Amino acid sequence: MLPVVVVHGGAGQIPKERSEMSTAGVCRAARAAYSILQGGGSSMDAVVEAVSLLENDPSFNAGCGSVLNVKGEVEMDAIVMDGKMLRSGAVSAVRNIANPVQLARLVMDKTSHACLTAEGANQFASAMGVPSVPQESLITEYSQMRWKKNLTPDADPVECQMGKMGTVGAVAVDGEGNISCATSTGGMLNKMEGRVGDTPCIGSGGYADNNIGAVSTTGHGEAIMKVTLARLILFHMEQGQSVEAASDLGLAYMRSRVHGLGGVVTVDPRGHWAVRFSSRQMSWAAAQKDTLHYGLYTGEHYTQSINAH
Amino acid sequence: MLPVVVVHGGAGQIPKERSEMSTAGVCRAARAAYSILQGGGSSMDAVVEAVSLLENDPSFNAGCGSVLNVKGEVEMDAIVMDGKMLRSGAVSAVRNIANPVQLARLVMDKTSHACLTAEGANQFASAMGVPSVPQESLITEYSQMRWKKNLTPDADPVECQMGKMGTVGAVAVDGEGNISCATSTGGMLNKMEGRVGDTPCIGSGGYADNNIGAVSTTGHGEAIMKVTLARLILFHMEQGQSVEAASDLGLAYMRSRVHGLGGVVTVDPRGHWAVRFSSRQMSWAAAQKDTLHYGLYTGEHYTQSINAH
Repeated sequence: MLPVVVVHGGAGQIPKERSEMSTAGVCRAARAAYSILQGGGSSMDAVVEAVSLLENDPSFNAGCGSVLNVKGEVEMDAIVMDGKMLRSGAVSAVRNIANPVQLARLVMDKTSHACLTAEGANQFASAMGVPSVPQESLITEYSQMRWKKNLTPDADPVECQMGKMGTVGAVAVDGEGNISCATSTGGMLNKMEGRVGDTPCIGSGGYADNNIGAVSTTGHGEAIMKVTLARLILFHMEQGQSVEAASDLGLAYMRSRVHGLGGVVTVDPRGHWAVRFSSRQMSWAAAQKDTLHYGLYTGEHYTQSINAH
Repeated sequence: MLPVVVVHGGAGQIPKERSEMSTAGVCRAARAAYSILQGGGSSMDAVVEAVSLLENDPSFNAGCGSVLNVKGEVEMDAIVMDGKMLRSGAVSAVRNIANPVQLARLVMDKTSHACLTAEGANQFASAMGVPSVPQESLITEYSQMRWKKNLTPDADPVECQMGKMGTVGAVAVDGEGNISCATSTGGMLNKMEGRVGDTPCIGSGGYADNNIGAVSTTGHGEAIMKVTLARLILFHMEQGQSVEAASDLGLAYMRSRVHGLGGVVTVDPRGHWAVRFSSRQMSWAAAQKDTLHYGLYTGEHYTQSINAH
């Protein structure tokens, strides 16, 4: 059953003309991460690679393609977590960085801290030799169009958010049984400057524990935080629930208690995996035993050989 | 059993000459919060009042008296959470604010977000009419002395942190059964600029749910985050553990799994409360049924009539 990697490209309602691009993007990310795992790479290497590819893909709300804040600027959040020692690293409200997930990993590996924010995160990036990229390189025409649309007085950014891909993320278990997660986002459409959502918040945007499993979340960030969704699902797994049942229990509770929609990818130490969402769609892909699995709508589950292209 | 409020002034090893001041401070905060509850005020009003008083007291590492970051500057984190609707508000790495806990409450009450960071948090403060205070007004001679001491190459800020009061916080249940928590901190001694610890991270620095109870945490922030300590303790309570047993289970797990020390104040919906810590000391005070309870060392528990001064 090992190794395995599961990738998501965000929960929401994806316009038809963008759905092929997002499916192609998550499949590419899952293949690349699986190839790392097959080569003996760690689950951390695999999830960071998968999320970096999604950050580089303008179809997703992370890195290039991030939604814009109310001022029309890009501020990004990301987290990684290593299930062996429960080490984690995160950045919040960081600017001018092509791959926030890689910076989050540097926070984990090179500092005694778990999260750096805003200007402090950028100073750290600079000290680590991570290049500063022009903001324009992260902004797409599509994100600018949506930003302008949501500046009108009757706009509903939360509703509109569901019209595009959300946060991206990945979970993986490597051949040694080490479990990792990574999540990255441009956040919420037309958010206030300095808004930090669920993504960099440990237990909300993601959590990994070699003894239990790992979860990466996407959806309405403030609702995810209210129920600490990733940790909640893992608590259900600690109580003996399967990856599917635990994920469904967590999402159902979020819906009933705080009226929030979202999606998750979940793995356990034996390599069982689940993709569950309460939103209309979530682009996802998984790779295990030389098979690529992927889908977009509820119940959709395609497979193909990992070597077919 | 209701109302009840429990306050902490941080886990650590408190120098003898500072222990009286810290005990006096938490007792004052508990009395003030209890008076609000007796007057029919909400648990949210009570915890914000208690934490504001501790922020204003230079004996504690929050607001005035905050530890300094590596540049000798003050960057503060705070959170509040309302257990009825699971609403929360937080600020991270905010500067020039006398009472970050009040700003966190404004984030909860006046925005659709759950956390604002750094410059964005300060812009929001300004928009809300919250005055900007000079940084010098938040810096004490003691915090400057400790900052300089920890700039030497052989310094160990984590170890030294335990030589001073940590984070402050409070939990309360009001007469209507509504449960709230609040936590505020200057963070970790000589931290990197932009470092965000456990305090503003929901489920780590605090959590409140009317159906379960509330926890406010203090101690080594990065360790608290690794185990999402507040939410972990509440999961144990959901499984039927008492406030004491759940708190002890959470702290023991943090110690064994990630070698972290800390302390918590915990309440349940019926007004049972617990004060537990794995550090050498934690200043704390609780008020219930017209009695003030307080202590500093493990096992210490003094009581007096709430009306005696």
